Amino acid sequence: MLRKEQNDLLTQTGPGTPMGQMFRAYWIPILLSEELPENDCPPVRVKILSERLLAFRDSEGRLGLIDEFCAHRGVSLWFGRNEEAGLRCPYHGWKYDVNGQCVDVPSEPAESGYCKKIKLKSYPLIEKGGVVWAYMGPADKRPPEPAWEFATVPEKNRFVSKRLQESNWLQAMEGGIDSSHVSWLHRGDLAHDPLFKGARGNQYNLGDARPVFEVVESAGGLYIGARRNAENGQYYWRITPWVMPSFTMIAPRGNHSVHGHFWVPIDDENCWTWSFDYHPIRELTDSEVTAMRGGKGIHVTYVPGSYRPAANKDNDYLMDRAAQKAGRTYSGIAGIAMQDASLQESMGPIVDRTKENLVSTDNGIIMARHRLMRAAKALAEKGTTPPGVDPEHQKIRSVAIVLPADVPYKEGAKEALIAKPGVAPATV
Amino acid sequence: MLRKEQNDLLTQTGPGTPMGQMFRAYWIPILLSEELPENDCPPVRVKILSERLLAFRDSEGRLGLIDEFCAHRGVSLWFGRNEEAGLRCPYHGWKYDVNGQCVDVPSEPAESGYCKKIKLKSYPLIEKGGVVWAYMGPADKRPPEPAWEFATVPEKNRFVSKRLQESNWLQAMEGGIDSSHVSWLHRGDLAHDPLFKGARGNQYNLGDARPVFEVVESAGGLYIGARRNAENGQYYWRITPWVMPSFTMIAPRGNHSVHGHFWVPIDDENCWTWSFDYHPIRELTDSEVTAMRGGKGIHVTYVPGSYRPAANKDNDYLMDRAAQKAGRTYSGIAGIAMQDASLQESMGPIVDRTKENLVSTDNGIIMARHRLMRAAKALAEKGTTPPGVDPEHQKIRSVAIVLPADVPYKEGAKEALIAKPGVAPATV
Amino acid sequence: MLRKEQNDLLTQTGPGTPMGQMFRAYWIPILLSEELPENDCPPVRVKILSERLLAFRDSEGRLGLIDEFCAHRGVSLWFGRNEEAGLRCPYHGWKYDVNGQCVDVPSEPAESGYCKKIKLKSYPLIEKGGVVWAYMGPADKRPPEPAWEFATVPEKNRFVSKRLQESNWLQAMEGGIDSSHVSWLHRGDLAHDPLFKGARGNQYNLGDARPVFEVVESAGGLYIGARRNAENGQYYWRITPWVMPSFTMIAPRGNHSVHGHFWVPIDDENCWTWSFDYHPIRELTDSEVTAMRGGKGIHVTYVPGSYRPAANKDNDYLMDRAAQKAGRTYSGIAGIAMQDASLQESMGPIVDRTKENLVSTDNGIIMARHRLMRAAKALAEKGTTPPGVDPEHQKIRSVAIVLPADVPYKEGAKEALIAKPGVAPATV
Repeated sequence: MLRKEQNDLLTQTGPGTPMGQMFRAYWIPILLSEELPENDCPPVRVKILSERLLAFRDSEGRLGLIDEFCAHRGVSLWFGRNEEAGLRCPYHGWKYDVNGQCVDVPSEPAESGYCKKIKLKSYPLIEKGGVVWAYMGPADKRPPEPAWEFATVPEKNRFVSKRLQESNWLQAMEGGIDSSHVSWLHRGDLAHDPLFKGARGNQYNLGDARPVFEVVESAGGLYIGARRNAENGQYYWRITPWVMPSFTMIAPRGNHSVHGHFWVPIDDENCWTWSFDYHPIRELTDSEVTAMRGGKGIHVTYVPGSYRPAANKDNDYLMDRAAQKAGRTYSGIAGIAMQDASLQESMGPIVDRTKENLVSTDNGIIMARHRLMRAAKALAEKGTTPPGVDPEHQKIRSVAIVLPADVPYKEGAKEALIAKPGVAPATV
Repeated sequence: MLRKEQNDLLTQTGPGTPMGQMFRAYWIPILLSEELPENDCPPVRVKILSERLLAFRDSEGRLGLIDEFCAHRGVSLWFGRNEEAGLRCPYHGWKYDVNGQCVDVPSEPAESGYCKKIKLKSYPLIEKGGVVWAYMGPADKRPPEPAWEFATVPEKNRFVSKRLQESNWLQAMEGGIDSSHVSWLHRGDLAHDPLFKGARGNQYNLGDARPVFEVVESAGGLYIGARRNAENGQYYWRITPWVMPSFTMIAPRGNHSVHGHFWVPIDDENCWTWSFDYHPIRELTDSEVTAMRGGKGIHVTYVPGSYRPAANKDNDYLMDRAAQKAGRTYSGIAGIAMQDASLQESMGPIVDRTKENLVSTDNGIIMARHRLMRAAKALAEKGTTPPGVDPEHQKIRSVAIVLPADVPYKEGAKEALIAKPGVAPATV
Repeated sequence: MLRKEQNDLLTQTGPGTPMGQMFRAYWIPILLSEELPENDCPPVRVKILSERLLAFRDSEGRLGLIDEFCAHRGVSLWFGRNEEAGLRCPYHGWKYDVNGQCVDVPSEPAESGYCKKIKLKSYPLIEKGGVVWAYMGPADKRPPEPAWEFATVPEKNRFVSKRLQESNWLQAMEGGIDSSHVSWLHRGDLAHDPLFKGARGNQYNLGDARPVFEVVESAGGLYIGARRNAENGQYYWRITPWVMPSFTMIAPRGNHSVHGHFWVPIDDENCWTWSFDYHPIRELTDSEVTAMRGGKGIHVTYVPGSYRPAANKDNDYLMDRAAQKAGRTYSGIAGIAMQDASLQESMGPIVDRTKENLVSTDNGIIMARHRLMRAAKALAEKGTTPPGVDPEHQKIRSVAIVLPADVPYKEGAKEALIAKPGVAPATV
């Protein structure tokens, strides 16, 4: 349970808010590379952290993220012409480069230097791992490039998607931290989803619906360890990292690709759920990629022309009571992603955490919230760089491992929790 | 005309409001029995008196009305599994019985007794007359079961429907109290609607568009008597009762079924209009039921999959100006129910009663408002049980009767105004 | 740039606001005559200057503009019966004439004189030039009839349309004052639109994208002169008048019809853009009218059954990036009207003028705003009739003319700027 002011602190990320300031300390994913497919392609409206911005790729391939609205009279530059190394407002021809610098005001004599005085707000973008990342904080605090393993493996080892989630970012991310719901909400899918079924380890999950959770701090966030009984008095551990501000991973299953999420606020009542699959040492197979594109695993299918899921709150997520009754799905909603999203959206746009009743399996969530609040406070008051900015904090993995009963997982899985190029993930 | 604070008092029914407290003194209709058709059927979201609740019928047929949201982290239990004598949240498996008592928190050891401490808000439901009724007030004030005649006649004598009305409850109910509009708004329908036409008595209605109204208090509310001239210096009286908080009836016509309404606030800008037809001593005929299902009389047809009328404000109620011009309908809207609803919704979500100009034919409305305000005040200040809670107040009938000019209708129709099992209604 | 209180002053036109008071000093267009096609036709809901009104044409052809809602209990009179020289509320039969005077309350004895005490707010309407005009100010200040030339030429010389614009009126009108965007936003259309292409003068427009603007005050508003170089050291002037409160014209092109606009607030976030084409001395040709009906020139096509443009913000104005890339349209939006509207709506419902950066080409806009503020203040404080009320201020024309370099346009075009019946417009 949180006090109202704590809930406000954690859920509000607009300009000037403490949590907003903290998100602005990181490189955060804002677009798929496919949304800016080529030089001089159409610009894309980007609402992120409650700011209305415009992303574009100029004639030389440079990426820009600038204020959506022209400095002259406020027209949306989404209508602009992306050509000749800049974006030109179609109303009176004012032109901006990728840094938001105005480079032409046609009505003013070039020699007046007027346009030099006009500059739109802009943020740097970089492209890595099929994702366009933005840094929206102070220039002198710009962090090193993101080093998440999914973004650094060869392109064919990876599949990344995003979907609109119509809720605050925090209740979405809390679902990613919370491993304890898997045995309930997703139980039908472990047996049937092509990206989950048939893996070693599932038998432990399905065999023990009451795992014991041990949550410990990591350099960048937390490790959430879920302990189940294995053979011969050993323990089966599924260890899933949370790295600040909002990166989570699912523990691996056999030789399957590993999955994870990034949760990015659009505004306080909507967020992007980024979903990635990758394998550190092999390419994804055609059938895996086909399944991912088809909305299997943690991915979804969309309302055409959008990144809004085809199953959404307007159609009650295509609830299928017969499937629920028959146990084909546990909640009646198809697909792991929408099983999570439907419930998280059902909590309301911003869940009221003054009313919740948390139990021991929520320790990961409790500790993450406190770590977020501590870091936001340290950043606001002392300028302390928050955990997770350091690329070393990002080079982590989830782990599924059987350990002797007397070995703490942070020790027994120590090496396995570090992302190492060319090294296979630890799975049973 | 009301002062603003009076209008607010009468129209606001959320938790903590005086009128909300008063509605919570009664059994009020919330669902048709057909919405919870069998044991372990899907739960139904119920917004009523501005509270978001969930109704379900458990494995043993018990009915429950509980808080829509799980006590754990706030997920909507609409996604829950209704099975094994309770509703289980699909997120982490917390389970509730029909009283909102948590009966299982799977992650906690059963011996901890944790789940006993978790209880959702819940209200009792009963089923009577094809309707599910809720009592949302204090447990120690729970009234006797509803005794409205329509709910106590044999099932085949009755037809009940409900429709969404997109306005505050009061302006809807005022239409039910107001008999004076019938000769205007519904004049086309008295002659053509299969459930109204051809009845004795219509000739008086159509012959005298300026009835004299006499409104008198009854034990549970009011009798509204509309007096028209009949043969031989006698009077034709149509007497329609209003019983608190929001029950109204239409006066009978020959051997036709009798009609009435219940008006129940969803929130302050929407209400359910309940519409019933029944006959005290005979079954409804197939053709009557077919007409009712087809939206004749006071019933409507719906947007598929909902209880929203097919004719609604988004399509201007399918206004037919040619029918209006030709006099086939008086307002251009088809059907008695939507003739009323269209005008009442056109007043705005909550009509501003500081601007109205009432005349003598509005006396029923004026007296009902004052009685409501008086009762709400007495309940709030002294705990006085309001009129209409007592089942004897509910055993009433509407009457159509010809009386000598010197007999007050409250005397002349005294017996006819009481519902008596097996006794035919008084009609001309 | 404006201060916030200046922006509020200029953009708010509801009852009681200074700018609202000023709009109420003029005859303003509210309906096309075709919307009230015959006696006793259906009444039309009219929201204008944030007031909800109802217009109707009674049995004798008289026009009325009255409060939308019945004085009795607030029902919308849109559902009323327009018959026998008045509009009758279908609820209880109260009846009103075109002046809002209640002429019948059926439930009250006629001899009581009750209905004489009931009068709805009403405003006078007149019909001129295919347009229904309303005057919403004090009766004793009623101005002479509108004298705009487009409304006084023979019917066959004129085509008038209106379209919903989903923005405040001021940012819409500022587009009409601002000639400087034509060379940018509309450049594709000067060459291709059947109502613009092939005219003399276009070569100057396309040949000089940086005209010099000279703005001077006129009796009723402003003249905005755009100067471009012509042959032999002469100047090509395009002079477009703005007359208060919101009338603008486009400069003529050869023998083409001349175009102009009227911008009328619906509420503070929506306005009607009126668009007219006319020729002072000839009928419009069939092909011209066909093009106008087809959405060419400054006209649009509509969502069926409405005056909302078919290209609108819900479909991103049917943005065609390929056409934009190829230069067939400059912004990717088809048609002059929607090119303007799309950009103006993209500024948001009410553009924040505290953030703009105006340049010399915005002088017309700057001067118009100041003139509006001055006039609103003089009207509010001293009752001064604002410019543009006098019919002489309305008898103006736009002009396209070549003048010697040393002749000020206000002198050189003095006669041409006055509308004279039977005299051809001055064009090159």
